[in-house]
Amino acid sequence: DNAFTSQDYTAFYEQIVKDRLPMVMALEADRMANLDLSDGNVSTERNVVLEERRMRVDNEPQSLLVEQINAALFLSHPYGRPVIGWPDEVRRIGRVEAQDFYRHHYAPNNAILIVAGDVSADEVRNSAQQAFGKVQARELVPRVSYAEPKRMGETRLDVASKDAKVPLFMREYRVPSYAEAGPGQAEALETLAQVLGGDDTGTLYRKLVVERHLATGAGASYDGYARDSGNFTVYAYPRPGVSLAALERAVDGIIADATKAAPNAKDIARAKIQLVAAATYRRDSQYARASAYGQALSIGLTAFDVKAWPDRIQAVKGDAVAKAAKTYLIKKEAVSATLTPAP
Amino acid sequence: DNAFTSQDYTAFYEQIVKDRLPMVMALEADRMANLDLSDGNVSTERNVVLEERRMRVDNEPQSLLVEQINAALFLSHPYGRPVIGWPDEVRRIGRVEAQDFYRHHYAPNNAILIVAGDVSADEVRNSAQQAFGKVQARELVPRVSYAEPKRMGETRLDVASKDAKVPLFMREYRVPSYAEAGPGQAEALETLAQVLGGDDTGTLYRKLVVERHLATGAGASYDGYARDSGNFTVYAYPRPGVSLAALERAVDGIIADATKAAPNAKDIARAKIQLVAAATYRRDSQYARASAYGQALSIGLTAFDVKAWPDRIQAVKGDAVAKAAKTYLIKKEAVSATLTPAP
Repeated sequence: DNAFTSQDYTAFYEQIVKDRLPMVMALEADRMANLDLSDGNVSTERNVVLEERRMRVDNEPQSLLVEQINAALFLSHPYGRPVIGWPDEVRRIGRVEAQDFYRHHYAPNNAILIVAGDVSADEVRNSAQQAFGKVQARELVPRVSYAEPKRMGETRLDVASKDAKVPLFMREYRVPSYAEAGPGQAEALETLAQVLGGDDTGTLYRKLVVERHLATGAGASYDGYARDSGNFTVYAYPRPGVSLAALERAVDGIIADATKAAPNAKDIARAKIQLVAAATYRRDSQYARASAYGQALSIGLTAFDVKAWPDRIQAVKGDAVAKAAKTYLIKKEAVSATLTPAP
Repeated sequence: DNAFTSQDYTAFYEQIVKDRLPMVMALEADRMANLDLSDGNVSTERNVVLEERRMRVDNEPQSLLVEQINAALFLSHPYGRPVIGWPDEVRRIGRVEAQDFYRHHYAPNNAILIVAGDVSADEVRNSAQQAFGKVQARELVPRVSYAEPKRMGETRLDVASKDAKVPLFMREYRVPSYAEAGPGQAEALETLAQVLGGDDTGTLYRKLVVERHLATGAGASYDGYARDSGNFTVYAYPRPGVSLAALERAVDGIIADATKAAPNAKDIARAKIQLVAAATYRRDSQYARASAYGQALSIGLTAFDVKAWPDRIQAVKGDAVAKAAKTYLIKKEAVSATLTPAP
């Protein structure tokens, strides 16, 4: 199946030749109304999920670590729960749970349809009406409104794992998402992540890997496409002989600098070009273009937000980047973690 | 109102003269069916809860710390959520949320009635039938089955607070509850907590306060009356001039000893006498006696379990206490925390 799941939505997609559109819509409408959630099917899919977990998470100490960091970062919100599920909870999902979820979430009044390609709005509207118009609206589970409590102090998680091949320092901060942020805030966080560590031209890599020889890799990222909270991650792999504590102090120093002054003009200009170029390339693919709109709409943004994004990134000022760092990269409200290979 | 709330149940109680029993039952039946959850009432009660939070939690750094430790200890289960609620989430509770909760939880098919005192079973059954027989059963929300993921490493939480008056070390372990534990396991944990730190005769107090002058106070407790998971807490207050790190090392040493050998016969005998005596004293009060049964029944135990408890404590062997320590007091699956007064 062509499907993927995020913390806020599940997406199904098909890449097809144009004249298959009505047929594919009919199939998707059928999936929305008549899914076979018999015991046998549910148990097969449950095993698929567990197998995927084993491959992608359970055998990957870094993935496990990220899961535990996330669980520690969210004290209330279910974003602390991995999208794929905790293993023993996945094992408990049966027909009844699957049907209940299906009944309360899979419905035309809870779905967004995106079509990208050589079609007209009228064509799409007509086929959609024909296919999905027949599917009954359902009573949805009311959305619960979560509000994270204030964190009182830095949380640390130190993991020794036999499966870990190299040591790693990682920290996650809870920050506003695009859906929550005030004007320009999320774009400032996006630019900050790119300046600090979007790639090998980022400050973390340049200072830790190239100049100071403390790390073999380092970076930062901002995940802001969420309905509620976003998160901001920094990480670094120590060079052999460098302690995780020393590396963490160096990361702290670089972050402290980022809170004090705007990035230099060259760095910020390069970060913006990288961000906008990556988005432009992505939109050359119909799939990526449709995804971008689907992702935005499903977290409460508008099509206009998607179109305006490159301009909003271009408008980010250096001071706003420093302010974002100062406001949100607060160590004592973050989860800091280390992974160490165990003998 | 005479009411209290735990993580598994809400209790309402009245202490009355015998002939008021039918009247009080009629009032409770009315509360079960016809509660006034108008906007005004809900908003008043919401403020009462927030005020109670301010007094008991928000102004008490130790209570706040315990809340954050709990939130960190449970990665999946809602036991990580404080019973009184996170402040910004309490603020969002309105009429709709209150009515929804009421409709799906307050029902005769989700209630346990306990009457202690000079009454016969027939009398109680008759008045109960008259009062509650009229209240319609309701469709309950199906109970969600949680299963905590394995923890990968010790979680640490270091808090500096201006409101803290003295430094504190505290650690919480997730351990089986009475409802989950195998035969004798919960009783062994109960005995272990009493031996280690039930009062000033416990090992932690004796060694840390009396013998080594490292602490001004120290103790341990087991909270096992829960439907799902229980927890085990150890704590110590350093004497001025003693570092939290040194104190924690000393606590670790005492716990390590407890995992290696059974407590000495005198300590274990004293712990059992203390536990059974405390339960016996409590049952001299009708209120405490009714509570004990209500608490046990609401987490899935039986009246027989309540009656058999003193004998089960008496039957705990020293080896089982050491085994409980070794099996469950695993530092790398615990949350360790410090609280330090900030300038």
